[in-house]
Amino acid sequence: MTQRIVTVGLGLIGASFTSALKKTDFSGHITAVVRNAATGQEAVDLGLVDTYSTDVASAVQTADVVMLAVPMLAMEQQLNAMAATLPDTAIVTDVGSVKQPFAEQALAALSHPERIVPAHPIAGSEKSGMRAANSALFENRRVIVTPLEQSADRHIATVKALWEKVGAVVEELAIDHHDRVLAHTSHVPHVLAFALVDALAKQQEVEEIFRYAAGGFRDFSRIASSDPVMWSDICRTNPTAILESLDQFSHHLQQIRSAIETGDGDTLERTFERARTARNTYSDVQS
Amino acid sequence: MTQRIVTVGLGLIGASFTSALKKTDFSGHITAVVRNAATGQEAVDLGLVDTYSTDVASAVQTADVVMLAVPMLAMEQQLNAMAATLPDTAIVTDVGSVKQPFAEQALAALSHPERIVPAHPIAGSEKSGMRAANSALFENRRVIVTPLEQSADRHIATVKALWEKVGAVVEELAIDHHDRVLAHTSHVPHVLAFALVDALAKQQEVEEIFRYAAGGFRDFSRIASSDPVMWSDICRTNPTAILESLDQFSHHLQQIRSAIETGDGDTLERTFERARTARNTYSDVQS
Repeated sequence: MTQRIVTVGLGLIGASFTSALKKTDFSGHITAVVRNAATGQEAVDLGLVDTYSTDVASAVQTADVVMLAVPMLAMEQQLNAMAATLPDTAIVTDVGSVKQPFAEQALAALSHPERIVPAHPIAGSEKSGMRAANSALFENRRVIVTPLEQSADRHIATVKALWEKVGAVVEELAIDHHDRVLAHTSHVPHVLAFALVDALAKQQEVEEIFRYAAGGFRDFSRIASSDPVMWSDICRTNPTAILESLDQFSHHLQQIRSAIETGDGDTLERTFERARTARNTYSDVQS
Repeated sequence: MTQRIVTVGLGLIGASFTSALKKTDFSGHITAVVRNAATGQEAVDLGLVDTYSTDVASAVQTADVVMLAVPMLAMEQQLNAMAATLPDTAIVTDVGSVKQPFAEQALAALSHPERIVPAHPIAGSEKSGMRAANSALFENRRVIVTPLEQSADRHIATVKALWEKVGAVVEELAIDHHDRVLAHTSHVPHVLAFALVDALAKQQEVEEIFRYAAGGFRDFSRIASSDPVMWSDICRTNPTAILESLDQFSHHLQQIRSAIETGDGDTLERTFERARTARNTYSDVQS
């Protein structure tokens, strides 16, 4: 049987997924739900999808898998819009960076909880939008599937198989665990990058500052180019874990600040050495 | 006439410089001053330098150019140790990340201010030490020469020529300007990376945190592997500019924190958009 996939939203992640899938031996059918017909036609012309629709309710009627790939605060509206026409047999997944809100909204909107399988591809780019689609985006990158208690094993397997097909390494985490870990590892670093670049942009020497930016800062500042709406949504949907992580960071920063102020070289050296050791110890668990 | 260069210290920067110079048509002689003979012999065996010495006072006696490449808090001691035997004709330069302290110490220790030419190669690595030497480290990287008022043009030209020979793009900045700009662009980002990694290392989920580290954070955390002594020295020699930049950053971070706490999506989106625009506007002035 032909697998029919409907992606709702065709930004960087959605379009990279469909474009990657179409480069495999996938023999199914991919429809994108987009806001306007011109975008949909361009996606078809670019070979990103087979067909498009501007009406989510009708598009999902024949779906086997529906993947929501819209900004997180737009998820609920899409879930409600598809609820009445979604077949009982369709699996619903997503690509959001925070899992708790999607899980709750999907449970509230949809009638078959065993078919809800939230997921989060840990891949991205400071670029955004369909035209930034990159079929290699998920190769050897981790995708974290965060099943509900109710999610059925065979539907979890279907979602995992799709991500593995596009080259990802799929793992499982509990929803609350995911949201806490990602606050530390992704959400807070983005907030720091946005804060730093915003602060530097107000300096008189802003041109020289970016001119003489080297190494780590250059890479770090790059993430401040990420999609503002997406990151505002992440901050609004995972505030508790982000604030907790942010406050722990600020506490450590304050200790370093005091050591700089008092010229306490021992504390500085000891802190930097501890960070270096941690980084070197754990960096080998990175892919 | 054969140009005789003496590098005092043979860490990553010093050894990368000598190794790069030896790959050019440079026909002079390079001596490294090191702490122990075994290191010196290894440097000769590796082809990094022609000869070595463990005694800075005797090594500089025939030098045309002396390059100090030791941690910043070790500079003064080396300057004092060479003062009595340094020929009147020798140019003295350095590679420190903060310029004011070296300038003051060199002026105090040495008798020919027109021959003092501080410089700062903006290149580095999270690796450190002679064995991490990379002859391509300075290719197309910026080196900022920060002359004293007294530095003679022809000596500035000699130092610039050496850096250009190893592939660097050389520019000039005033000392105070350099120290302020670098606080923003390098010193504070390193402090943030050390603070973040140190905070994360204390989390229960530390393994998962590094496991699921993606993109920008991975690059950012890498700078927390930088040499602790070097970075402690930088914090101790440039505290005023670093604290000023750090406090500006903290002010912006606090505003974002409040917006997360109150769920103020407008402020978050506006701030992130402003950062993205700044980053995209100025990133094209980067090399």
